[in-house]
Amino acid sequence: MLGSTHGTLTTDSRRARVVACGGQRPGPAVHDRVEDLDVSGRPLHADVPDLTRFFRPESVAVIGASDAEGRPNTGITRQLLDWAGRVGARVHPVHPTRPSVFGLPCVTSVAGLPEQVDLAVLLVADPLPVIGELAEAKARFAVAFASGFAETGPAGAEAQERLAEAVRRSGLRLLGPNTNLNAFERFREDLPGPAIALITQSGHQGRPVFALQELGIRLSHWAPTGNEADLETADFLSWFAEQPEVGAIAAYVEGLKDGRAFLLAADRAARRGVPVVAVKVGRTEAGARTAASHTGKLTGADDVVDAAMRQYGVIRVDALDELQDTAALLARARPPLADGVVVCSISGGTGAHVADLATGAGLRLPRLSPAKQAELHQWIPEYLSVANPVDNGGHPVGDRRGRKIIDAVLADPDVGVLLCPVTGPFPPLSDRLVRDLVEAAEETDKLVCVVWGSPAGTEPAYREVLLGSSRVATFRTVGNCLTAVRAWLDHHRFVGDYRSPFDDAPRTLSPSFRKAEALLQPGRQLSEHAAKQLLRAYGIRVPREQLVTSAAAAVRAAGQVGYPVVMKASGAQIAHKTELGLVKIGLTSASQVRDAYRELTDIARYEGVGLDGVLVCQMVEQGVEMVVGVGHDDLFGPTVTVGLGGVLVEVLRDVAVRVPPFGEDQARAMLGELRGRALLDGVRGRPPADADALVEVVLRVQRMSMELGGRIAELDINPLMVLPRGQGAVALDALVVCR
Amino acid sequence: MLGSTHGTLTTDSRRARVVACGGQRPGPAVHDRVEDLDVSGRPLHADVPDLTRFFRPESVAVIGASDAEGRPNTGITRQLLDWAGRVGARVHPVHPTRPSVFGLPCVTSVAGLPEQVDLAVLLVADPLPVIGELAEAKARFAVAFASGFAETGPAGAEAQERLAEAVRRSGLRLLGPNTNLNAFERFREDLPGPAIALITQSGHQGRPVFALQELGIRLSHWAPTGNEADLETADFLSWFAEQPEVGAIAAYVEGLKDGRAFLLAADRAARRGVPVVAVKVGRTEAGARTAASHTGKLTGADDVVDAAMRQYGVIRVDALDELQDTAALLARARPPLADGVVVCSISGGTGAHVADLATGAGLRLPRLSPAKQAELHQWIPEYLSVANPVDNGGHPVGDRRGRKIIDAVLADPDVGVLLCPVTGPFPPLSDRLVRDLVEAAEETDKLVCVVWGSPAGTEPAYREVLLGSSRVATFRTVGNCLTAVRAWLDHHRFVGDYRSPFDDAPRTLSPSFRKAEALLQPGRQLSEHAAKQLLRAYGIRVPREQLVTSAAAAVRAAGQVGYPVVMKASGAQIAHKTELGLVKIGLTSASQVRDAYRELTDIARYEGVGLDGVLVCQMVEQGVEMVVGVGHDDLFGPTVTVGLGGVLVEVLRDVAVRVPPFGEDQARAMLGELRGRALLDGVRGRPPADADALVEVVLRVQRMSMELGGRIAELDINPLMVLPRGQGAVALDALVVCR
Repeated sequence: MLGSTHGTLTTDSRRARVVACGGQRPGPAVHDRVEDLDVSGRPLHADVPDLTRFFRPESVAVIGASDAEGRPNTGITRQLLDWAGRVGARVHPVHPTRPSVFGLPCVTSVAGLPEQVDLAVLLVADPLPVIGELAEAKARFAVAFASGFAETGPAGAEAQERLAEAVRRSGLRLLGPNTNLNAFERFREDLPGPAIALITQSGHQGRPVFALQELGIRLSHWAPTGNEADLETADFLSWFAEQPEVGAIAAYVEGLKDGRAFLLAADRAARRGVPVVAVKVGRTEAGARTAASHTGKLTGADDVVDAAMRQYGVIRVDALDELQDTAALLARARPPLADGVVVCSISGGTGAHVADLATGAGLRLPRLSPAKQAELHQWIPEYLSVANPVDNGGHPVGDRRGRKIIDAVLADPDVGVLLCPVTGPFPPLSDRLVRDLVEAAEETDKLVCVVWGSPAGTEPAYREVLLGSSRVATFRTVGNCLTAVRAWLDHHRFVGDYRSPFDDAPRTLSPSFRKAEALLQPGRQLSEHAAKQLLRAYGIRVPREQLVTSAAAAVRAAGQVGYPVVMKASGAQIAHKTELGLVKIGLTSASQVRDAYRELTDIARYEGVGLDGVLVCQMVEQGVEMVVGVGHDDLFGPTVTVGLGGVLVEVLRDVAVRVPPFGEDQARAMLGELRGRALLDGVRGRPPADADALVEVVLRVQRMSMELGGRIAELDINPLMVLPRGQGAVALDALVVCR
Repeated sequence: MLGSTHGTLTTDSRRARVVACGGQRPGPAVHDRVEDLDVSGRPLHADVPDLTRFFRPESVAVIGASDAEGRPNTGITRQLLDWAGRVGARVHPVHPTRPSVFGLPCVTSVAGLPEQVDLAVLLVADPLPVIGELAEAKARFAVAFASGFAETGPAGAEAQERLAEAVRRSGLRLLGPNTNLNAFERFREDLPGPAIALITQSGHQGRPVFALQELGIRLSHWAPTGNEADLETADFLSWFAEQPEVGAIAAYVEGLKDGRAFLLAADRAARRGVPVVAVKVGRTEAGARTAASHTGKLTGADDVVDAAMRQYGVIRVDALDELQDTAALLARARPPLADGVVVCSISGGTGAHVADLATGAGLRLPRLSPAKQAELHQWIPEYLSVANPVDNGGHPVGDRRGRKIIDAVLADPDVGVLLCPVTGPFPPLSDRLVRDLVEAAEETDKLVCVVWGSPAGTEPAYREVLLGSSRVATFRTVGNCLTAVRAWLDHHRFVGDYRSPFDDAPRTLSPSFRKAEALLQPGRQLSEHAAKQLLRAYGIRVPREQLVTSAAAAVRAAGQVGYPVVMKASGAQIAHKTELGLVKIGLTSASQVRDAYRELTDIARYEGVGLDGVLVCQMVEQGVEMVVGVGHDDLFGPTVTVGLGGVLVEVLRDVAVRVPPFGEDQARAMLGELRGRALLDGVRGRPPADADALVEVVLRVQRMSMELGGRIAELDINPLMVLPRGQGAVALDALVVCR
């Protein structure tokens, strides 16, 4: 029954694929046991293909190989042969008519291949017919370069679906279509240290990251995922996270094929502490529209994407230069020994400016201790400020004092980062400074960053000395340096505290579910009373209330509920009760209750609103009004939203969102994201609100979203009155629309 | 009487200087006639020194010149001689003992100079004694390199004040102390087009902007203002704005010496349409603290600085790379012919990504017309999207089609900017593309931008072709390109609409002032009733209300005011009336009024609050609650603030601020800045509020701030109830504290 709820996700098709592939496909465990799904029916484990033989095949077939002058496939074939030579793979050209290609014997069809190949590169215009032949030949991987699929429109999307279906049946794994040679580029092998592994849906967009190798930054892999008919970003993410040489994963994503698969992959990276830095297009509608037309994939609502990435520690950046600089730092820098940042410069102005920007970027610039300042003043004139920023006045870095200053700062246990902005080459000082920084960085586990501010960037101190060091993190702009340092500190804090929500995700239906199920009315909006019963079933407190159908019963109910009471018209299709005058508050006597009953039923009659009665409710005041609800995202499925009620949510959309499953830490972090969160702490002398109770409600609503997500189209508690600390939270009104 | 109000501004000292200098000093008109001051006593015109002979002197004295090996002054003297040779100035070394320096005859003292000099460069440790001698010798300008003044602490600040005082008496104008040689650098003279003029308080911070010349961008001047004992940022700003070769002014500012002088200078630049791009340190407290200790000057509250700069069109950026890129574009690009931006790329992914970021940056990306798209599809395959972004698919830019595509886009009247991101060198395509762009840019008045995304930046297509063009605006990051393009469009929009607020600033006291004056009680907080009378004096509507001292009078008053009424305890020192229960609302009958009177006086007696009576006020409902008030900024003096009342202003500080004088356009723009501005437009079916009336109140409060600024310490209208459109706005409560 739950199965029908995930039409927009690909869980069903993924499971179908698992079943269809059986034992033929490469990769580890196959999960189709019930305990590998959460209560919403979504998988709890990433299905990681073993891509070793994709990136390092022993044998490669090139279908459509050519050595004829002037044909596009000739250049591609030549590049593939070069690459195969480097990785030590045997190449088998396949062509219907040529006897040989570049001196290699050619077979006329896949069936004629002399061995089972690890990888088949499809240079043919229509890869579909070849898939079955490759399956027969037990090829492990294929790459389809052909374009003209989902990126071109509905007809192309259908062709792609046929291709995907053939691949699912085949047991092989396919990269593409609409991809290119990026996976088979020439990577520099002389560069030391941990590498960046790159995933891009557009080849051109990965080019600048690949070019980082010219600046001495190592790259290990590049996965150009193209249209993702089969292998997708998530597959490469999971696999890259397990490769020992990978220090960070950089991804350029236009659209995600399967939200859950991406989160499971990000979870794997988070568990292993491997940082993932991603550009995800779709900040604005225009971008989203174009991205969709470009890759023919779904672009999720951007706030949800943002939240989902944050939940799994994926570092989202906007531009490619940020992607480069952040990924490079995260790949190469060792874990922080402290989070204090010291700015050290040869100019007080530069130091003050960078300190200002660093503080604005959320970094902590500790004031150095008097003892440390005295130590620095051995080498720096007394009138210069060395509290942090450290203004060395210039001259000291031109001689042996420069290195002493650097070492003294790095020796401070409160300091994890030394940040040296150099506004330009001033060789008598900057050449020596740069050499000292490179040498000091070799001898410390702390992070040494240099911002080389000269716009030309052709100076030897930059090109040769700084870029020659894998220990100094060199940037061209202060902004990118601060973004990267902040991401590096955040990443290590995140993985240090990380506990996978998939480990704790509920696998079985709660006892609440059966009670709730009986209350649902498919296709209808529940009455307020029924909606509140649903909340009660999940342990969410609602006011004492009774549904009555006469004035006398109302008075009796008020006596039982306790004065003062609120009375509301109740019916399945009532919206905007307050605007219609269908709510009466603060009723303190039997006569007021009788009058209110009459008035409410009169208005309902006048407005033509069908009633199932009148609710007599306990009046709850003096709390903070919140909104908690369940949304639906096309990519990630049900989401949970919390916001400040009243004008804040309506005018400012001051809400935080999360994708289930998530734990208490994330529920609490949601409150921290609200701009108006001070209201929960208490303003104008009000007591602080019961944030624990609010967190509890958010988690119970999450449970509802997971168990009932497919059965309810909308769920909103508005307002949830959060009482003063220790007194709980009460859902004063609720809207539930069943599917 | 008003004179005493500006202790924190330097108006008095500026006027003193004007008087002291008499006719001796260089520069145009001296303003000390009363009509050159606004009603608050502040000047309405910048006092622009003529700096021609500072930057291009005919004769220069070098006091403390040296040619002795190894002395720091020797290097400086040599640089000055080189520079003097370039600008054609005669140099007169001054030294007590040397007969000659570098072969030039030396005089022993200033008195011995053979002619009146335009500029004296002071290389002596204590410039103070020389100032009098230079005044005797009628020198026009002096530059003091010595450090050890305000930047070192209180004793240095005193020494600087003595220097400043001597300069004020002398009639010469001084640059420094604590400055350097930057004004006398070697500027490239081979570069074409409009130039950047640079002002920096820190030499190092100007270095990267100066180095733009290596990228082919022309610089005309550099003013390193140092400690600004006399000449300040504002002086150079005003003068640079009048130089024909200056296309934009770039400024690095740590602290402003005189807020009004800066605004008057920015106003001059705005009137002439000269863009000013500035980094102003002090975004965060840490930065501000350090900046103050560095230059010994006042750092204003950052929000006010931000607002003041926006009022005069000064483009504020955060980092030096943004300063460089924005100033370079604004100096060189012609005025926009349209604000539509088209992104054109050889990759759909790149185009989608940059379009996303551009839209997020507030740029308008029009969808190209079907006719234009059809035109582009002559050269671009049909399946590629050319609606904007234009995805040319790569190949067409490798041949003659590339230029046709560029020209077709530029010919669209809705397009003002062609933005081409190139993610990296791909010579068969990118070399030709870049050449086509350079050639196309020569033939159009529209803006052509290229983002050269390769991290190395050593490629000939970038270094030689793109940087060789003064018509293509080349960037290294998409972010900086978008910041600069946005600033360029904003600048031209701003100066197109600009009307100087100084032209319309009130010069004489309004008739309201005399009425208001009688209500002020120096050193005391006014009662609510008196505060409202003050507002009424300035034409701000208050509720009908009467102050009564008996229950019977209260009932009479209620009859006259009209039911329902609000009653409030009134007294000079009452705060938190609502919390104490000293406000009763919605009273609808004589008996309720009588009861309320008794209750209010009982509570006041119990709480020990002194009353001057009870206010019986007209009850005003159904509006939007706002706050309007007067603040005080150390740098700019009185400011006017408007915000949304209630929780929005308390929790979110959702306010907008302006520095007087400002016009109706700015008052209206303040409302646009409020995050909760939708409340004014009407939410939840409420009618739109009377924004015109709100603007009118803001302008009247501005008038109060200008006329009473020195007499009142605090003024707040909270709440101002803004009624539905056409019905006005009513100040329901007000707080006024007199000085």
